[in-house]
Amino acid sequence: MEAQLIETMILLTINFQSLIATKASRIVRAAEGRPVMEFGSRRAQSYDAAVLGARAAYIAGCSGTACAIADREYDTPALGTMAHSWVQLFDNEYDAFKAYAEVYPASCTLLVDTYNVLKSGIPNAIKVFDEVLKPKGFRPKGVRIDSGDIAYLSKKARKMLDEAGYPDCGIVASNSLDEYLIRDLLRQGAQLSSFGVGENLITAKSDPVFGGVYKLVAVEENGTYAPRIKLSETVEKITTPCKKMVYRLYSTESGEPVADYIAMYDEEVPATGPITLFDPANFWKSKEFNDVELRPLLVKIFDKGECCYESPDIETIRKYCIEQVNNLWDEVKRFENPHLYYVDLSEALWTCKQVMLSEHNIK
Amino acid sequence: MEAQLIETMILLTINFQSLIATKASRIVRAAEGRPVMEFGSRRAQSYDAAVLGARAAYIAGCSGTACAIADREYDTPALGTMAHSWVQLFDNEYDAFKAYAEVYPASCTLLVDTYNVLKSGIPNAIKVFDEVLKPKGFRPKGVRIDSGDIAYLSKKARKMLDEAGYPDCGIVASNSLDEYLIRDLLRQGAQLSSFGVGENLITAKSDPVFGGVYKLVAVEENGTYAPRIKLSETVEKITTPCKKMVYRLYSTESGEPVADYIAMYDEEVPATGPITLFDPANFWKSKEFNDVELRPLLVKIFDKGECCYESPDIETIRKYCIEQVNNLWDEVKRFENPHLYYVDLSEALWTCKQVMLSEHNIK
Repeated sequence: MEAQLIETMILLTINFQSLIATKASRIVRAAEGRPVMEFGSRRAQSYDAAVLGARAAYIAGCSGTACAIADREYDTPALGTMAHSWVQLFDNEYDAFKAYAEVYPASCTLLVDTYNVLKSGIPNAIKVFDEVLKPKGFRPKGVRIDSGDIAYLSKKARKMLDEAGYPDCGIVASNSLDEYLIRDLLRQGAQLSSFGVGENLITAKSDPVFGGVYKLVAVEENGTYAPRIKLSETVEKITTPCKKMVYRLYSTESGEPVADYIAMYDEEVPATGPITLFDPANFWKSKEFNDVELRPLLVKIFDKGECCYESPDIETIRKYCIEQVNNLWDEVKRFENPHLYYVDLSEALWTCKQVMLSEHNIK
Repeated sequence: MEAQLIETMILLTINFQSLIATKASRIVRAAEGRPVMEFGSRRAQSYDAAVLGARAAYIAGCSGTACAIADREYDTPALGTMAHSWVQLFDNEYDAFKAYAEVYPASCTLLVDTYNVLKSGIPNAIKVFDEVLKPKGFRPKGVRIDSGDIAYLSKKARKMLDEAGYPDCGIVASNSLDEYLIRDLLRQGAQLSSFGVGENLITAKSDPVFGGVYKLVAVEENGTYAPRIKLSETVEKITTPCKKMVYRLYSTESGEPVADYIAMYDEEVPATGPITLFDPANFWKSKEFNDVELRPLLVKIFDKGECCYESPDIETIRKYCIEQVNNLWDEVKRFENPHLYYVDLSEALWTCKQVMLSEHNIK
């Protein structure tokens, strides 16, 4: 009953935050080391989505977020440049840039596309760098381009900034970016030092549903767990019965994770290979791993209604997340048609599933 | 400054709730009068998204939601059937159905696909209808099918229920439905009386970003409003300057809305046609309307920092929303490539935009 009460909240929490972390991780990888800022609050699917999404994006590798509340609540660094409304509020672009540079001389990134990037934005920015920052001994942080053809404009802007003596001035791109567009821009030689990514990250637009499920797999009766199964005409939707433990197999050579291994919760599991894994859906498939080490993944959070887990700080979580993804094979991280990471069953679990399927097979 | 502070919260609130209401309206229309229940909480993009999304779905025409918190907080009727875990908790399907029918005899909808819809689910449901509901004088409410081919299974199930004396027993379909799948199922003669729609509704999966923007269009100076514009290489992204009023033009013949008309806030506007509208992006296009009546759409919510608006109850909002959508031409409501509903400018506004564009045109 208790498990039932928390189902929806657990599912939506894990589904959404995993979704955004996954999308952010892809976008960060596409940027090839350039910082990615989360800029999506205004298009987030509600307030919680903006704040928790910003946190998930930071954990996955974004350098920070424009969502200041996420900074206050979850210590995700707040970052930002300037808004079009700042520029529009002044009688002209030059006055707007000048006022901004005077307030933020140490972190001066100017938004140069309110009127015309190459004919107005960049010339005015350079003028303000010369007239306001230089005399005070500051270097400009960057310019941001939020519309138009980013590849073309960034190359032209780079040249103008270099010639004016600001080769260290960054160029930030924003405007409906995602991993595919960032990859394409970089392939075309766009001169970009960082990215601001909004709606496509915070909603995971390319695939906005993370389909985690929460299924009854066993019923406790007098201290033992009676397995339960749910069938389906769609083979992937058939559940795997039994209370379980999950292990990750790491290659003893490279240290890379090679597969996850799901066993019965009370099953004896070897600390190292050889070990045989059984595919949960395609029952004729099994795979043997030799030079591997097994590490259990499940951590107890609650014990008899008491929380027995201390949540790590966000920097520790972020470091762990980035390390785990970095350790995965490149083939698994490919954006399109990635190689499938194995998440397979122990022989005992596989056998239990077979037996239950046969029992329920109504001819 | 005050306008700036609320920008993000206003945008995300209106963008998200309009997004879900729009998607729900499409799905409700596809169901052609059959009730649609919102079932998406577990896949919503956070807690707020689940609750406020359920409210938006109800406003747009859904009959209710499985999100009980939305009922408690916003009076959206909570509806639901049963979960697979209910069926799995018992030793067999028959016992599970029997226990449910005994607790909910007046609203008994049984989930029939945990093991096998036609060989186990429907026969067990009929047995329980006969043995539990009939003796108590109750009629079954329905059966729900959540997997497999809904068209095929619903036709077979309909026949079995009819032959058993339950032609009034509804059949509810769920499982990754949206407006397209519902339309296709009904075209293929699926025997369905209502729908439960989850992830595709609550995330607006087909298009999860609603791109509403919030732009500085004028700056108040001594009681007058100096217009401001933002340019872009993408013509649709150029803002329309000036403080404005919005009117809707209704046909005096049919009562249908035919266009929206945006004028200066202090402009004299006729109460009826003839009136000429100017396209905001394609400047050579204008259109004259004769037999129309103009009604202003903007309502003051805050006056000098005080809220001066009383929010209607949810039933009033829902009725208004459904009426407004029903009044639109079918051509505008087509799912793919709909006819564009005109949202055009007054001549004075159009002229102001032209002048500002020329002033900023840096050659």
